Amino acid sequence: MSKPVNRIYFDNAATTPLDPLVLEAMMPYFTDKFGNPSSIYSYGRESRLAIENARKSVAKILNAHPAEIFFTSGGTESSNTAINAAITDLGCRHIITSPIEHHATLHTVEHLSCYGDVELSMVKLLPDGHVDLDDLGRLLANSSEKCLVTLMHANNEIGNMIDLHAVGNLCKMYGAIFHSDTVQTVGHFPFDLRNTPVHFITGAGHKFHGPKGAGILYINENVRIKPYIHGGAQERNMRAGTENLYGIVGFAKALELATGEYETQSAYIRELKLYMMEKVKNAVPGITFNGDPLGRSLYTVLSVSFPKTEKSEMILFALDMNNICVSGGSACTSGADQGSHVIRAINNDPNQVTVRFSFSKHNTREEIDFVVEKLREMI
Amino acid sequence: MSKPVNRIYFDNAATTPLDPLVLEAMMPYFTDKFGNPSSIYSYGRESRLAIENARKSVAKILNAHPAEIFFTSGGTESSNTAINAAITDLGCRHIITSPIEHHATLHTVEHLSCYGDVELSMVKLLPDGHVDLDDLGRLLANSSEKCLVTLMHANNEIGNMIDLHAVGNLCKMYGAIFHSDTVQTVGHFPFDLRNTPVHFITGAGHKFHGPKGAGILYINENVRIKPYIHGGAQERNMRAGTENLYGIVGFAKALELATGEYETQSAYIRELKLYMMEKVKNAVPGITFNGDPLGRSLYTVLSVSFPKTEKSEMILFALDMNNICVSGGSACTSGADQGSHVIRAINNDPNQVTVRFSFSKHNTREEIDFVVEKLREMI
Ligand SMILES: Cc1ncc(COP(=O)(O)O)c(C=O)c1O
Ligand SMILES: Cc1ncc(COP(=O)(O)O)c(C=O)c1O
Repeated sequence: MSKPVNRIYFDNAATTPLDPLVLEAMMPYFTDKFGNPSSIYSYGRESRLAIENARKSVAKILNAHPAEIFFTSGGTESSNTAINAAITDLGCRHIITSPIEHHATLHTVEHLSCYGDVELSMVKLLPDGHVDLDDLGRLLANSSEKCLVTLMHANNEIGNMIDLHAVGNLCKMYGAIFHSDTVQTVGHFPFDLRNTPVHFITGAGHKFHGPKGAGILYINENVRIKPYIHGGAQERNMRAGTENLYGIVGFAKALELATGEYETQSAYIRELKLYMMEKVKNAVPGITFNGDPLGRSLYTVLSVSFPKTEKSEMILFALDMNNICVSGGSACTSGADQGSHVIRAINNDPNQVTVRFSFSKHNTREEIDFVVEKLREMI
Repeated sequence: MSKPVNRIYFDNAATTPLDPLVLEAMMPYFTDKFGNPSSIYSYGRESRLAIENARKSVAKILNAHPAEIFFTSGGTESSNTAINAAITDLGCRHIITSPIEHHATLHTVEHLSCYGDVELSMVKLLPDGHVDLDDLGRLLANSSEKCLVTLMHANNEIGNMIDLHAVGNLCKMYGAIFHSDTVQTVGHFPFDLRNTPVHFITGAGHKFHGPKGAGILYINENVRIKPYIHGGAQERNMRAGTENLYGIVGFAKALELATGEYETQSAYIRELKLYMMEKVKNAVPGITFNGDPLGRSLYTVLSVSFPKTEKSEMILFALDMNNICVSGGSACTSGADQGSHVIRAINNDPNQVTVRFSFSKHNTREEIDFVVEKLREMI
């Protein structure tokens, strides 16, 4: 990654820079290999082959069947597809979710509960922000309707992770459909889908140094649904529209790179997170960490709350002035400036200002030193 | 466009090669400018600005308001969004369409008529494949429900065009919503949307030397709908999901280039089409042209039917062997190998074999000479 000197990018949960090797893999499809993958001549078959190879590669990495992997325009479309299909095609009439899901989930289920004939329940959270599995069990046991459980694997604002097996097995016990928004973990977690009790998971290339506009939906082979976007026969009749050929090739390449380096990089990034926690705790009095950062938590995300003061309220702007990129809530909501529904749900303390730091392999301890020093000066 | 020597690409209605200038415009967003457009720091605002500039540019070219232009993943998603919204949000209970629409329309309306509470009518076609406007008027007049009329601007297989004003004014007279699939004409037609009676039109970048995976939906400002893909606040709450930044920038750049050169290029390509008609008519006895190629017809598309013989049945393969790219039906259906629903609807002659030739600015008379010579030899 080439970056202008002095900019520090600690917002990798919002999006990541494209890996130059990914761009290199995409390049031929921007120039010579532009054939429509649905065309029957050799030139189209070449494109088709690139897509099917990408699918095989993604499937292998996630330990799924290629026939279970569908390419989409991103994580949001994937979640919309899965959640709608559970209602329309799989007979679910009761959705169980949590208040800290991404808006791709929350706004979709809210729309279905307003306009469809669907009941909506919110599972309770424990004080550390984890899903209360006992409450989930109760909701499932008490439901008279078939349930869709949609719970994210790792929260994009605080990093909390669910145990896919624990949740999936509960769902299995009650015949529920289980969708997990895994947008923050695909590319950052060693999936083994053939041995994981989940019906749908989702991924977005731009979260792990792949391209924007390209995502996947995993649909377990035992589940039969109709497409959400109707039209041509692409993606074996499951997602119509001329394929984003470069995006698909880039998605697969980025996942290959992320997985090949997973052991070393996750350890490296986890170290950065722990280092930041240590440093910021010592430098700024009165801060707290949201969620369960030392427990079941994604190694890339650290959510810090600062005591609210005139200065801390300006912290995002002050960091921006210093060329330091971080977020308040998630990227998608920060524009709307309504504060974070996630932070509100787990820690409704109006006397705090919350900042999310999220790391990648490109970050360094020196950057953390610099940022913490700036935070100390500011507050 | 760099292309391997000897390949002749006459399938530009399926997809077009990316213009190197478009790739150049996209390039900074693949490298340095990767910020999430929803992030509030300067780095994200830079991306946001690129998107808003793209929107302004597209709007200006189509003579629409920027607030009427929404970026999507492609033409198919755009049509799905418009058609579903007409039913769900605008109260249409009767869809009027034609049997020669693209599957992005047909499969969407079929799904709605199977699963939603929606009546479906097919407008009659005249012998030359044009929509029978008298029949459309009758259908509208006799409908007791609010109608959605969805008719494509230019047919992707035979090139026939509707008169947007004539159809739109009919719709207006009966209070119907009018959606036109303009995927074949955005980038190939001088739109003036502020003075065109249409509620929704659609576009796909890859049809005019722009990127795959990027499209637009125009929503007339007088129409209020809900998003089809729910989630973050992107596209002013109308299309959730982290934006395909490069795709959007590329879409706008490609449209700028296409429009800047429209007069000369459309004249040049029209000449090629006429030249091909002349040449092939003289070289191969018994051929016919489908649709209305000399009348209201898109200048890029030419549909030719050859008398069915053992040799003509192998024509697509034989052309492929000679490195000549053409299609039978549309690209999206050719994979499925069911023949073309468009050709069946207008000219159900089992004793013909149909080939679509579709041209771009990169094609030449020499290429046509070569292809016609090959056709003569083959048949
Ligand atoms: C007339 C028409 N409508 C819709 C589409 C769908 O566009 P896309 O495949 O880019 O989603 C196409 C091309 O594939 C088309 O030719
Ligand atoms: C947890 C989570 N789910 C879903 C999404 C949506 O993904 P996209 O914006 O790529 O569609 C995001 C990121 O934006 C996310 O962090």
